[in-house]
Amino acid sequence: MTGEPLRTIYVINGPNLNLLGTRQPEIYGHETLEDIEAICIATCTAQNAKLFFRQSNHEGELVEIIHEARLHASGIVINPAAYTHTSIAIRDALSACDMPIYEVHLSNVHRRETFRHHSYVSGVATGVIAGFGSEGYLAAIKHLLG
Amino acid sequence: MTGEPLRTIYVINGPNLNLLGTRQPEIYGHETLEDIEAICIATCTAQNAKLFFRQSNHEGELVEIIHEARLHASGIVINPAAYTHTSIAIRDALSACDMPIYEVHLSNVHRRETFRHHSYVSGVATGVIAGFGSEGYLAAIKHLLG
Amino acid sequence: MTGEPLRTIYVINGPNLNLLGTRQPEIYGHETLEDIEAICIATCTAQNAKLFFRQSNHEGELVEIIHEARLHASGIVINPAAYTHTSIAIRDALSACDMPIYEVHLSNVHRRETFRHHSYVSGVATGVIAGFGSEGYLAAIKHLLG
Amino acid sequence: MTGEPLRTIYVINGPNLNLLGTRQPEIYGHETLEDIEAICIATCTAQNAKLFFRQSNHEGELVEIIHEARLHASGIVINPAAYTHTSIAIRDALSACDMPIYEVHLSNVHRRETFRHHSYVSGVATGVIAGFGSEGYLAAIKHLLG
Amino acid sequence: MTGEPLRTIYVINGPNLNLLGTRQPEIYGHETLEDIEAICIATCTAQNAKLFFRQSNHEGELVEIIHEARLHASGIVINPAAYTHTSIAIRDALSACDMPIYEVHLSNVHRRETFRHHSYVSGVATGVIAGFGSEGYLAAIKHLLG
Amino acid sequence: MTGEPLRTIYVINGPNLNLLGTRQPEIYGHETLEDIEAICIATCTAQNAKLFFRQSNHEGELVEIIHEARLHASGIVINPAAYTHTSIAIRDALSACDMPIYEVHLSNVHRRETFRHHSYVSGVATGVIAGFGSEGYLAAIKHLLG
Amino acid sequence: MTGEPLRTIYVINGPNLNLLGTRQPEIYGHETLEDIEAICIATCTAQNAKLFFRQSNHEGELVEIIHEARLHASGIVINPAAYTHTSIAIRDALSACDMPIYEVHLSNVHRRETFRHHSYVSGVATGVIAGFGSEGYLAAIKHLLG
Amino acid sequence: MTGEPLRTIYVINGPNLNLLGTRQPEIYGHETLEDIEAICIATCTAQNAKLFFRQSNHEGELVEIIHEARLHASGIVINPAAYTHTSIAIRDALSACDMPIYEVHLSNVHRRETFRHHSYVSGVATGVIAGFGSEGYLAAIKHLLG
Amino acid sequence: MTGEPLRTIYVINGPNLNLLGTRQPEIYGHETLEDIEAICIATCTAQNAKLFFRQSNHEGELVEIIHEARLHASGIVINPAAYTHTSIAIRDALSACDMPIYEVHLSNVHRRETFRHHSYVSGVATGVIAGFGSEGYLAAIKHLLG
Amino acid sequence: MTGEPLRTIYVINGPNLNLLGTRQPEIYGHETLEDIEAICIATCTAQNAKLFFRQSNHEGELVEIIHEARLHASGIVINPAAYTHTSIAIRDALSACDMPIYEVHLSNVHRRETFRHHSYVSGVATGVIAGFGSEGYLAAIKHLLG
Amino acid sequence: MTGEPLRTIYVINGPNLNLLGTRQPEIYGHETLEDIEAICIATCTAQNAKLFFRQSNHEGELVEIIHEARLHASGIVINPAAYTHTSIAIRDALSACDMPIYEVHLSNVHRRETFRHHSYVSGVATGVIAGFGSEGYLAAIKHLLG
Amino acid sequence: MTGEPLRTIYVINGPNLNLLGTRQPEIYGHETLEDIEAICIATCTAQNAKLFFRQSNHEGELVEIIHEARLHASGIVINPAAYTHTSIAIRDALSACDMPIYEVHLSNVHRRETFRHHSYVSGVATGVIAGFGSEGYLAAIKHLLG
Repeated sequence: MTGEPLRTIYVINGPNLNLLGTRQPEIYGHETLEDIEAICIATCTAQNAKLFFRQSNHEGELVEIIHEARLHASGIVINPAAYTHTSIAIRDALSACDMPIYEVHLSNVHRRETFRHHSYVSGVATGVIAGFGSEGYLAAIKHLLG
Repeated sequence: MTGEPLRTIYVINGPNLNLLGTRQPEIYGHETLEDIEAICIATCTAQNAKLFFRQSNHEGELVEIIHEARLHASGIVINPAAYTHTSIAIRDALSACDMPIYEVHLSNVHRRETFRHHSYVSGVATGVIAGFGSEGYLAAIKHLLG
Repeated sequence: MTGEPLRTIYVINGPNLNLLGTRQPEIYGHETLEDIEAICIATCTAQNAKLFFRQSNHEGELVEIIHEARLHASGIVINPAAYTHTSIAIRDALSACDMPIYEVHLSNVHRRETFRHHSYVSGVATGVIAGFGSEGYLAAIKHLLG
Repeated sequence: MTGEPLRTIYVINGPNLNLLGTRQPEIYGHETLEDIEAICIATCTAQNAKLFFRQSNHEGELVEIIHEARLHASGIVINPAAYTHTSIAIRDALSACDMPIYEVHLSNVHRRETFRHHSYVSGVATGVIAGFGSEGYLAAIKHLLG
Repeated sequence: MTGEPLRTIYVINGPNLNLLGTRQPEIYGHETLEDIEAICIATCTAQNAKLFFRQSNHEGELVEIIHEARLHASGIVINPAAYTHTSIAIRDALSACDMPIYEVHLSNVHRRETFRHHSYVSGVATGVIAGFGSEGYLAAIKHLLG
Repeated sequence: MTGEPLRTIYVINGPNLNLLGTRQPEIYGHETLEDIEAICIATCTAQNAKLFFRQSNHEGELVEIIHEARLHASGIVINPAAYTHTSIAIRDALSACDMPIYEVHLSNVHRRETFRHHSYVSGVATGVIAGFGSEGYLAAIKHLLG
Repeated sequence: MTGEPLRTIYVINGPNLNLLGTRQPEIYGHETLEDIEAICIATCTAQNAKLFFRQSNHEGELVEIIHEARLHASGIVINPAAYTHTSIAIRDALSACDMPIYEVHLSNVHRRETFRHHSYVSGVATGVIAGFGSEGYLAAIKHLLG
Repeated sequence: MTGEPLRTIYVINGPNLNLLGTRQPEIYGHETLEDIEAICIATCTAQNAKLFFRQSNHEGELVEIIHEARLHASGIVINPAAYTHTSIAIRDALSACDMPIYEVHLSNVHRRETFRHHSYVSGVATGVIAGFGSEGYLAAIKHLLG
Repeated sequence: MTGEPLRTIYVINGPNLNLLGTRQPEIYGHETLEDIEAICIATCTAQNAKLFFRQSNHEGELVEIIHEARLHASGIVINPAAYTHTSIAIRDALSACDMPIYEVHLSNVHRRETFRHHSYVSGVATGVIAGFGSEGYLAAIKHLLG
Repeated sequence: MTGEPLRTIYVINGPNLNLLGTRQPEIYGHETLEDIEAICIATCTAQNAKLFFRQSNHEGELVEIIHEARLHASGIVINPAAYTHTSIAIRDALSACDMPIYEVHLSNVHRRETFRHHSYVSGVATGVIAGFGSEGYLAAIKHLLG
Repeated sequence: MTGEPLRTIYVINGPNLNLLGTRQPEIYGHETLEDIEAICIATCTAQNAKLFFRQSNHEGELVEIIHEARLHASGIVINPAAYTHTSIAIRDALSACDMPIYEVHLSNVHRRETFRHHSYVSGVATGVIAGFGSEGYLAAIKHLLG
Repeated sequence: MTGEPLRTIYVINGPNLNLLGTRQPEIYGHETLEDIEAICIATCTAQNAKLFFRQSNHEGELVEIIHEARLHASGIVINPAAYTHTSIAIRDALSACDMPIYEVHLSNVHRRETFRHHSYVSGVATGVIAGFGSEGYLAAIKHLLG
């Protein structure tokens, strides 16, 4: 393992996900974002990879986190939350990244309001997983590292 | 009055409202945002309530002001301005607040461009008031404190 | 006050509002239309104004009440109920009135069926208030008299 | 049978149905509305029920007949004719009635113009029957009394 | 001329047309409905025909005037005003009349709001004339009697 | 009655109706398809008619049952279930049958998801009945035999 | 009459109208375009006006005839036939003409295919007449000269 | 482990998936359906669960496999392939199953033709995974057994 | 000709085509499917090719016939009938076939109902022919063999 | 053959087809319009028919060629090219022709941009053939003469 | 400069542009088309290029001017005016030109009627410039020659 | 030059434009934003004007840069990138600026995905230029200073 550089993964979380565990638990469950970060780190560590786990409520900040990931990561896992449905800027930032990208949603967005059925991100993602709760993050990370 | 805690109201203003009184006065009138803040404070003080009056041009910042209100306020009055029609993130933040929410527009948005006729916020608001000028803010505050 | 003529306001109510207080109270509340009339009269009297409070289930009758108001009133408060969404005749009658017009809805129509999201009246109203219960009537009256 | 109160049914007919038997018989058949009333009465009498059979060309009058039925009937059979497709006021009146409601059309509206394919009434009806001619009325009455 | 029965024409006017001459003269002109009636009578008299000139703000009443015309008239001229765009009941009543029907609009409805571009009546009319002011009535009457 | 040949009716049931009585009873009730078959047979027998009662989950098989009915039946009663909204093949098969066709739905489809509001079958049916439970079948059979 | 210059009217006919009297007479009647020209000339002569009567199957030629009318005419009567529904070039040419413009259709286009219900010309016309046969031309000419 | 009954999972595959590994490998990869079955069995065996792995090109057969699963399984993993977008019958069958249901797609359907963006199944699924290749099956199985 | 293998063509027919010659002859003509098979065989024999002529009312069976053709044929002629407009499964099966595919319709589908104007098959076909009756089959076969 | 008049066929080509063989050969092939004319003449001569082969880039000219064909031809083969999707004038000209009309496209328009999927001509054509290259012309001619 | 051939540019103008300077100057300005031609020639001469400046009101003629440019020009500047929104024939002609194409509009079409927001030409143009007045032509020419 | 104040221009760049020269060079070219800034400065300096060249990935920051320009600039050149299609806040900020505004896109957005065809900015811009690469900036600056 010596000499082989660590692979790096960015897990990027969109607006309101900092409220996780307290907001509408009937939809999003009781886990907090810190809980999710912990299991993501554990998964990466087990596979000898480095994890950057980020959250922002700002579209522009998310764009810049993706720019950063573009230079340093070998894969991106993103839960764009509400920006999934409204941000072409995030889509454009992702499409500038030459690496696998996985879109994760905690709940099954297809069972919610119609305006949540369209995603600007899916068109530039490698894969999409929704309704698996926090295990969606792990499935995406494993797929990236596998 | 002793012992009885002060009620707290957040009045939250969206993008470009800092220009109020100078921008397109034929639509928005000559009052500045400071003028509106002053009459809102007066109304709250008269009813022994505390007011937080905020403005931001940033969607993410507005999301975070709502997160703050969520912990401290007993009611929200919001004029989301242009984000009314484009921000699901603000809608999601508001829907995490377990308190009455009033949406205010200075002008009657239904008489303007078609893209201003749909509001992402109305679906999670308790009430909506448009075209009453700055009195819309006061009507909402009074309804919250009444 | 001598010599100064009384201002006159018409409050006009559309179909099914005569059932108020008994029909779907989870949406419309327990107040009856007579209760609302009483508080409207009180508000007008306090400001030395005259109130005509009318209700009809007939589109044509509502058109004619508006024609009457056009000659006698200095302002109109209208809750067009179901005709909000289907009556161009009421819109045309209102647009013939050269005075401020306020549209009132007891509930927040934007949280109900999609066909209740469009209003033919809003495009000719000065302001719109929804979801404030019977206080919406008072806010409109005060704005007219203020 | 003594002591047991008579059940009451309202059969309510919309605009132009007074022309039945003369207007476009290739669509509506040769029976008159009086013929239909007669067989409805016969059916009710046979089952010891009371029938109110009404027709109006006025949307507002139909709303008020429904208000009346709301207080006195144990079930409503309604052929809203042209108002099927345009009247939210009738829908609202019906939704205030806590009893079974059956929507009847003499012809199969789904084989006619596109604008006749949508019904505001079906969404608040218990059942719908179209294209059975006047027997649709009897099927509805029997279902109510059965 | 003896022995030859008089031909009868119904001219039927929809909602708000009683305001003609006072309401929005920049769209509808300064002539009153009485002025129009006078020139219509003159035209009919000159051709030895009988005229019934009617106006109602009530959709149901208009339906019944058409039922009346159906029995007595040899032709109908109708300006359905706002009901042009919303009334299937009036369309149904007209389609029960086996005689020529002319639809008249004082202004050119195609230059106004989009919702005025669709007419339920045109599909059952023989001809349509719009934007010719009150002469539209005369052109229709002459065509019927010509 | 001797010498007069028996009339034959096909009652055809679409996909998932074999689950009746167990699946979503709040929508479809507790009766099983066998229960419905029994009352249909009783009704036919009482009127001296022969009944073929069929169910299939296969679109192609339903097409072929209709082909069979086309040769042997004097009327068809069909509950196409989910294929109502998606099968043009069933519509085409029915339109090749020169006999009355009645479309039956146990529940009122107009109160369910939007995609259940359109029926490919209604356009070729003689009549449609929905929301009458299993009595819809009987009403259709009686209408065919009446 | 000496000294007073003759008024000039252009009557402009679109594609396929040269076939009039032979093509689909059940829609367009048996009159030829020459017949219509003759009665138009008679009407103009009677009122001391000059008539230019033109037909072309070419969109570009019609544009240029309108350019010509723009310089010489005091009013335009146009039957744009098929180009009614597809030509923005003709609309633009007409909107450059500062004079009354009347759009004429021999048949009632609203009773034909849906794609004939929209007119690019109506939005720049003074008035529209359809379904009056060749009398539509005369009504327009008289309105221009009246 | 003795005494504890084996859990049972149905993995159900829709039309054309029997071609896997040979058809359009640039979209679907080189693995065959047998390869996928093998890894699914391995995963279930490792967790002491029983697997039924089925494929059919027939909508009706898939409906019946789901009926079977409804009685015997504790969870369903389904790749409905082309029927995802057209089958309400499969949706109805799944909605009769009171157990977790996971929808799997090998490729990211959101990057393909527009008509593949809508799924009738997602609205009744617990979760959806697309673009993870055959690992999507395993992620779903693990989530069911986890 | 010895040594040169026979070319093989599949002619595949969709639902209800087994009724050909009896059903709606005004649309589909009097030829039966057997008649068409005969002339197709004659055409192939004349050009030393082998023909498989198949019909099914089952979408799944048609998918499997295409799978079979995929292995054995050098070209496909398909009349998908009603499945033209609803089957993505058939489209997917065809798009897995690396050979020319011709779509045939006996009647001109563009002159029928709007829902017959869209074809899922045309997007993966080499050519489309409609309204040539049974000669459409022959034109397609000749083009494949030519 | 003496005494029997020659049958006449018009083959009419729309805009840009004069470029054939040079423009986008990957879509339209390498044959020139002269090549196609030659094989069409050969086919007609072989069947003792006369051919008029025309091309124009002008919509109006195409309308007039159709008027000419209307008087002299017993059948029309038309490749309207770009005017397929935009010209109601050509449709109207064709619908005035009482003879069989075949619409031909060299490429399969259904595999190209969406705006090429709708044809104004198909609704008045007897048959349509697309994607058969120049053989489409021959198939249409043979069908006319067959 | 000897030996180096002159570059050739076509500037092509659509319908009604011959009226420039007189028609609706509030939208199009006071410059005439001759003024624009003069400055375009000056610009080309300064860069040693040859200019062909053309205008036509005929769609077909514009198609043929483009065919001519296709053989002789190294770049095209086109202001398609009204045909921008309706002509697929012009689009097809342009897409046959293997050279840079610039679309120019004098006014900002996005601020005008909705039907002017879609351009068939933009999809085959290299660049688009609108609202720069006549300088748009020069910017395009310079970009071609630069 | 003394005494005459410098004119000031703001060039404002939206999200992801900081990546220019590295991201998708086949769409956006190899120039960096610094390169563009350099040529813009050169152009302004040559005309004795002052340039503020700004970039932000944050919608709110862009709104505030526009507020700044509103006070200091005599013209704005803006490339809103992804926010072109989603930001009403930027549109509102621009519409508060009483000066010429030019919208610039490096690539021709009309040749890309459909969601890039609509711009919220164009409706408040003076002019729009797309597909001219970095020269679009210069053309806009020159137009402002010319």
